[in-house]
Amino acid sequence: MSTDPRLFIDAPLSAGAAIPLAREDAHYLINVMRRGEGDAVRVFNGRDGEWTAQIAHASRKGAGLTVGEQTRPQQSVPDLWLLFAPIRRTKTELIIEKATELGVAVMAPVVTERTQSDRIKVERLQAIIKEAAEQTERLDRPELRDSEKLGALLDNWPEDRALIFCDESGDETDAAWGGARGRGQPMASALASVGDRPAAILIGPEGGFSPAERDRLRRLDCVIPVTLGPRILRAETAAIAALTIWQSTCGDWQ
Amino acid sequence: MSTDPRLFIDAPLSAGAAIPLAREDAHYLINVMRRGEGDAVRVFNGRDGEWTAQIAHASRKGAGLTVGEQTRPQQSVPDLWLLFAPIRRTKTELIIEKATELGVAVMAPVVTERTQSDRIKVERLQAIIKEAAEQTERLDRPELRDSEKLGALLDNWPEDRALIFCDESGDETDAAWGGARGRGQPMASALASVGDRPAAILIGPEGGFSPAERDRLRRLDCVIPVTLGPRILRAETAAIAALTIWQSTCGDWQ
Repeated sequence: MSTDPRLFIDAPLSAGAAIPLAREDAHYLINVMRRGEGDAVRVFNGRDGEWTAQIAHASRKGAGLTVGEQTRPQQSVPDLWLLFAPIRRTKTELIIEKATELGVAVMAPVVTERTQSDRIKVERLQAIIKEAAEQTERLDRPELRDSEKLGALLDNWPEDRALIFCDESGDETDAAWGGARGRGQPMASALASVGDRPAAILIGPEGGFSPAERDRLRRLDCVIPVTLGPRILRAETAAIAALTIWQSTCGDWQ
Repeated sequence: MSTDPRLFIDAPLSAGAAIPLAREDAHYLINVMRRGEGDAVRVFNGRDGEWTAQIAHASRKGAGLTVGEQTRPQQSVPDLWLLFAPIRRTKTELIIEKATELGVAVMAPVVTERTQSDRIKVERLQAIIKEAAEQTERLDRPELRDSEKLGALLDNWPEDRALIFCDESGDETDAAWGGARGRGQPMASALASVGDRPAAILIGPEGGFSPAERDRLRRLDCVIPVTLGPRILRAETAAIAALTIWQSTCGDWQ
């Protein structure tokens, strides 16, 4: 595999195209990676596959590339969403970075009753997504949606999409729910019923979901309650583990 | 589940035992968690299960607990090791924390040819392990072994332990190896041959393993080369994903 620097570029890619570089990309190539005129890079834009390119010019005024040839045709990640209650800034950033590496298609912050923080710094998260997509050899960036309240999200839920409900903390409503829809099944076996339906993984805040939220979730036909082992996982660990199991069972790691 | 603070204590636990608290534990209980005399906590020591306890006294001179009754008998995590090439400090700390949450039994830094950093701050890593074990509701702490060179580790490898070799980067030696022992199988299906043998997961440094290391690893009967999907994962992401798949397939998440 080529070790040439890899850049997401927001412009059409075709043989011979001249691409001016954004200031941050020029800084990364010239100052961080120490590349100069004539050096090779790889570029992708989420639509046209991956291409070779060459640094055509680089100066204090800016830098630009000339596109060479296509090295890979465009390919999508599986149709998997990650819905997560925003937590502390560094943890939210970790979720965003790792979900991008693990090949998620869509991410959306979800505001639940016990969500501690709903401040999302979109610009910073987009920079993390871009860098992770570049490093992980994806051919696209995942979409980061605006945050939404859990209730509104469920009101408009697309019925054909399985909602994998990672229910880490048991609580007082458990007694009312027995059997498979109660505490949740181990995720890997629960996914057997999902097949290749589109899916979304829902991860709660550190304090878990409220009894009312858990009750509503478990009444929905599209919801599959799952557990992630006998220990208690932090929210960001649960997100990474759930994405891994889905990719490994239903996704493109098979 | 109780939300009383949970502490790992390095002392025998039995009903009525008086336990003096280490300075950091006293600080955590009194100043961080705002608890005082008479308040309930939970304690475990990796040998005697989990017990309730009460803060018997708390002052500037120190604090102590009185042990109440056992709430859970001692239980071990599955016999899984994680061998990882140390990387940047924050990434190594992330691996240690997440591996503790994901129920690993033993962790050991392994120095490979391309390992960039072999400085391990043992005291800081032990503090991270203790806190993660307390939060994740484990009944033990994973063992953190001294770092060792990959060659010496393989010289003394226990033959009955499967060595799951996470081989992220293809390189020039690939052509010499075809079929199942070549590029590696998807991890979940490769684990079918492991069954309930003891196992270790081996994660390389950011630059991957050298051709000589990869060649030696693939010649060993205990080695199972695996892949973690079509994207390139950072070392810490590969560690978390591999632990998750093992627990979900062979471990205690089933």
